[in-house]
Amino acid sequence: MPPTIGVFDSGFGGLTVLRALIDRLPQARFAFLGDTARLPYGSKSRRTIARYAAQSAQFLVREQGAEFLVIACNTAIALALDAIQDAVPVPVLGVIQPGAEAARAASQTGDVLVIATEATVHSHAYLAACQALGLRAIEKACPLLVPLVEEGWTNHPVTAEVIEIYLNELRSEAAQRGFNPDTLVLGCTHYPLLRSLFQQAVRPGARVIDSAESAAQAAVKLVNGRTAAPPAGSSAETQVHCFATDSVEKFERLGSRFLGRPTGNVELVDLGG
Amino acid sequence: MPPTIGVFDSGFGGLTVLRALIDRLPQARFAFLGDTARLPYGSKSRRTIARYAAQSAQFLVREQGAEFLVIACNTAIALALDAIQDAVPVPVLGVIQPGAEAARAASQTGDVLVIATEATVHSHAYLAACQALGLRAIEKACPLLVPLVEEGWTNHPVTAEVIEIYLNELRSEAAQRGFNPDTLVLGCTHYPLLRSLFQQAVRPGARVIDSAESAAQAAVKLVNGRTAAPPAGSSAETQVHCFATDSVEKFERLGSRFLGRPTGNVELVDLGG
Repeated sequence: MPPTIGVFDSGFGGLTVLRALIDRLPQARFAFLGDTARLPYGSKSRRTIARYAAQSAQFLVREQGAEFLVIACNTAIALALDAIQDAVPVPVLGVIQPGAEAARAASQTGDVLVIATEATVHSHAYLAACQALGLRAIEKACPLLVPLVEEGWTNHPVTAEVIEIYLNELRSEAAQRGFNPDTLVLGCTHYPLLRSLFQQAVRPGARVIDSAESAAQAAVKLVNGRTAAPPAGSSAETQVHCFATDSVEKFERLGSRFLGRPTGNVELVDLGG
Repeated sequence: MPPTIGVFDSGFGGLTVLRALIDRLPQARFAFLGDTARLPYGSKSRRTIARYAAQSAQFLVREQGAEFLVIACNTAIALALDAIQDAVPVPVLGVIQPGAEAARAASQTGDVLVIATEATVHSHAYLAACQALGLRAIEKACPLLVPLVEEGWTNHPVTAEVIEIYLNELRSEAAQRGFNPDTLVLGCTHYPLLRSLFQQAVRPGARVIDSAESAAQAAVKLVNGRTAAPPAGSSAETQVHCFATDSVEKFERLGSRFLGRPTGNVELVDLGG
């Protein structure tokens, strides 16, 4: 039996993590839950987020049989990773720790820049993870990037201009504080859709770390260490089931862009208040 | 006694309506409630929105003594105006009907363009209000404008470029459908902060209708028709009290831009789940 992997986000941005997982574990079964009825998590209290995230994790484990959980929601990791781990008896992986580890492996100067949503920056979860690995980090909230991605302007001159403005502000702050950054961490699951624009915007030689990719790599290690190798020659199509807690229309419409393939029918689930 | 006017929004965008009201009724007392813990309303069901809006209206009337209510939240008006009117025994005004009436007064061709958030456009509340007045209308969701305003880029070249792109798309659609629009309705309480950019972006002679201004004008008529004139020579400072249901920090930080003066201390209130 191929392993079942549960992936959870408050919205559908986490489909970029699912996409990176499918590329690496094509024979696994995947269940993705977007808690769209209760987003955004970023503006809610720690207790409420912990309750929502624990319910979501339990749905994926108890009802969908997930043997591994990947939490693709930065806010849930920053505020409720412990609560999720307490709620389910399976290994739980986030996107922040793998992103920080990839930054440490990539950076030669030890100075990194992290861009993310306002809520993630406010939590300083990336800063803490980077510092724990001996890196210096500067975080910056880039609130226009999620709406630009959702508008579909992923390869648009306006988006390139906005990225240039944000990166210039970051570089000014880095210069003022005597940092010499050589690595940029994309700390939001929407940002992988802007990867080529970021690649063009950073200085020559600088590395762009996609925390969705980093999380998928970490998940592959974990899964391969705990399950038998798939039977040779197995070529069945990857099984992907997507669930959402509110209107599936936007999810299906935008989700395919994030997933790089159709989401299929998204099933509505009720996790209660 | 000066009249007490309650103003309600799911967030703080409605402070542009409060600002327009203060300009016109400097001797009134104002209580503003932003239901920030439960925003955005746009993604929630009609029943839930009706419950939230009715609770908010009751807070303003019962606990703050509001004798008139101005609903500065397009979603609440579109989906729950009846529920609000049933919940409180005072006159209730929205922003949509006054905006449509101002458009009818301004337009010579009878064709108008309406820009708003995705949720408002999806409700087609402006379309219905315009059609009921004999106007033809084309609505367009402009999801990037609220984040641009909240980022503070209200007089920024990127914002001017985004407005140009949105208006060009609207003009193409108008041309295809044989419309000859001469009036643009700003159907979101964030957009008055972009008024000068819109004024530059529309064709010469075209009119820009700010529905916050229109709502304030309608409210003045209503209030003056029902209360005695203020005592001559009274020049006390306008009394404004702002309330929010979640973290007041962002409200105070951004609110002053919308209000055109400091919000003062914003008081946290609990309306229940």
